Amino acid sequence: MDNKRIVLASYPEAWVTEANFRAETAPVPKPAEGEVLVKNHWLSLDPYMRGRMSQQKSYVKGVEIGEVMTGETAGEVVESKHPGFKPGDKVTAPSGWQLYWSGKGELLTKVDASKVSLSYFLGCLGMPGRTAYFGMKDICAPKPGETVVVSAASGAVGSVVGQLAKAWGCRAVGIAGGKTKCDYVVKELGFDACVDYKAGDLYNQLKVACPKGVDADFENVGGEILDTVLRLMNVRGRVAICGLISDYNTKEPYGVKMFRSILVNRIKVQGMIVFDWLQRYPEANQALLDLVLAGKLKYRESVLQGLENAPKGLIGLLKGENFGKQLVKLT
Amino acid sequence: MDNKRIVLASYPEAWVTEANFRAETAPVPKPAEGEVLVKNHWLSLDPYMRGRMSQQKSYVKGVEIGEVMTGETAGEVVESKHPGFKPGDKVTAPSGWQLYWSGKGELLTKVDASKVSLSYFLGCLGMPGRTAYFGMKDICAPKPGETVVVSAASGAVGSVVGQLAKAWGCRAVGIAGGKTKCDYVVKELGFDACVDYKAGDLYNQLKVACPKGVDADFENVGGEILDTVLRLMNVRGRVAICGLISDYNTKEPYGVKMFRSILVNRIKVQGMIVFDWLQRYPEANQALLDLVLAGKLKYRESVLQGLENAPKGLIGLLKGENFGKQLVKLT
Repeated sequence: MDNKRIVLASYPEAWVTEANFRAETAPVPKPAEGEVLVKNHWLSLDPYMRGRMSQQKSYVKGVEIGEVMTGETAGEVVESKHPGFKPGDKVTAPSGWQLYWSGKGELLTKVDASKVSLSYFLGCLGMPGRTAYFGMKDICAPKPGETVVVSAASGAVGSVVGQLAKAWGCRAVGIAGGKTKCDYVVKELGFDACVDYKAGDLYNQLKVACPKGVDADFENVGGEILDTVLRLMNVRGRVAICGLISDYNTKEPYGVKMFRSILVNRIKVQGMIVFDWLQRYPEANQALLDLVLAGKLKYRESVLQGLENAPKGLIGLLKGENFGKQLVKLT
Repeated sequence: MDNKRIVLASYPEAWVTEANFRAETAPVPKPAEGEVLVKNHWLSLDPYMRGRMSQQKSYVKGVEIGEVMTGETAGEVVESKHPGFKPGDKVTAPSGWQLYWSGKGELLTKVDASKVSLSYFLGCLGMPGRTAYFGMKDICAPKPGETVVVSAASGAVGSVVGQLAKAWGCRAVGIAGGKTKCDYVVKELGFDACVDYKAGDLYNQLKVACPKGVDADFENVGGEILDTVLRLMNVRGRVAICGLISDYNTKEPYGVKMFRSILVNRIKVQGMIVFDWLQRYPEANQALLDLVLAGKLKYRESVLQGLENAPKGLIGLLKGENFGKQLVKLT
């Protein structure tokens, strides 16, 4: 029985390509005292991974050449030398892109997959869901009746943001690429409107979708989309900067011109990373689970089969080709 | 006895020119019931005036062609039909660029000019001082030992920002144009360092001046200066956007590229306008007066003689040619 894994072969210059990765085979690790061996069923692919494929300063150190790619997985304990875990336990783990992971039990999160799919703990009930929850609750902080805009609206984070906006009595307006995604966001997820940035004239489309202006923006994309939303923001608007996917694959980042709107409208723009709310994860987990079980938080997954397809999956995600939370099924 | 005033003759396209103004003579107004006639001694010139010479959306409506230019003055009551004022009272007034103003007493602020020059109530004890105070207190919110950067450091707002930083136990680093201003900021105002943006390589100069990075930025200039400061900001840094003078005279605003730093460092960027703190003006007035009287808040004025020189004064201010708070002496 071998472990398969994908390591970083080279740093991308702009767009990520498959040549930036290399598949490897290695023995399945043996857990030491206090450690747990996990067999992974699902690998999560997320935009932040692009940032790790770089030597630029970011939240944490980037992935080194030859190191296993960073990533979170959901799986099952197969061997435990930690008193908190036993074989069969379902967990999420910071495994990286590999079939097996062994490490300290403290790094695992046990999850209850009896009511929902195990994969949900990588999405609406995992890091993306918590990101949406805390960014909305603490930064966007919308009041009932306000208008909330979210970019990458059909994605893992964006879809939760808009549904939270609806659950909290706001007007939810999405931005997504293409009619299929926009239709899904409105008809399936229940947003009030969704604007197709690929259809052109984003400003006027958004103006129609937000007749009372924009009070809060949950920004996953940045660049021209952010600049356009800033033009429509109301006095004392809030912008949560959660991601800047439009910049991730360019050599030169986009220059945001609408600081005049930030000044004149006294807008608050705040960068965020979900780890800062670690102490409050249980609050988010419960709130999100309640919404899922009540049928108020719908969620779509885009599943690729097999670890070998993970590079392709990440590349597609960075180009906006995924539709819903991007996962790789490993088993 | 005639009133002299300066009206807006045309909207500037980029840089303001003297042709955008016109001098007029009119009768001195007669105060109606509830009104007060003020003879102005000092006119304040401030960067925000550029924003009013425009039809773009701003805090308030712009000045119309033919209207008296907006501006705050300090002067003396000469006739009062309002129970709260009597001849000889010293006041600040929203007079605009003119020698006499008559209007409702409620629009006036009575000031005590017995301990400091009347002109101070247009500067460190007036709107610019309060702007510095609330932006620092509520947005930059520096803790002792932190590093605070302020652009336009020798100006009316910036000079107060840095001295508040020092009074509150922080490292104060200014950015100003030219050696004379930088020397003044360090030697006279007591900042720890001041960087000359005209000397080039702002990034490395600033890096040397801020060995522990930047915790708070009080931004008066924007553009490349803001982009450079963002590169040096620490985790959970705060940026108060008070002014964007570098954009005021350009047709196309500068595009700020360092959103990556806002994201990665979870920086809070917030636009501000001092009117939002109207209820707390007494708090700022008292704190600033205490510092002035204690010799801890030094202040420099740049005075032009005669209303007819106000256009020239504003043009110089927008080019950074002033040195300290720009005033016009009217009497």
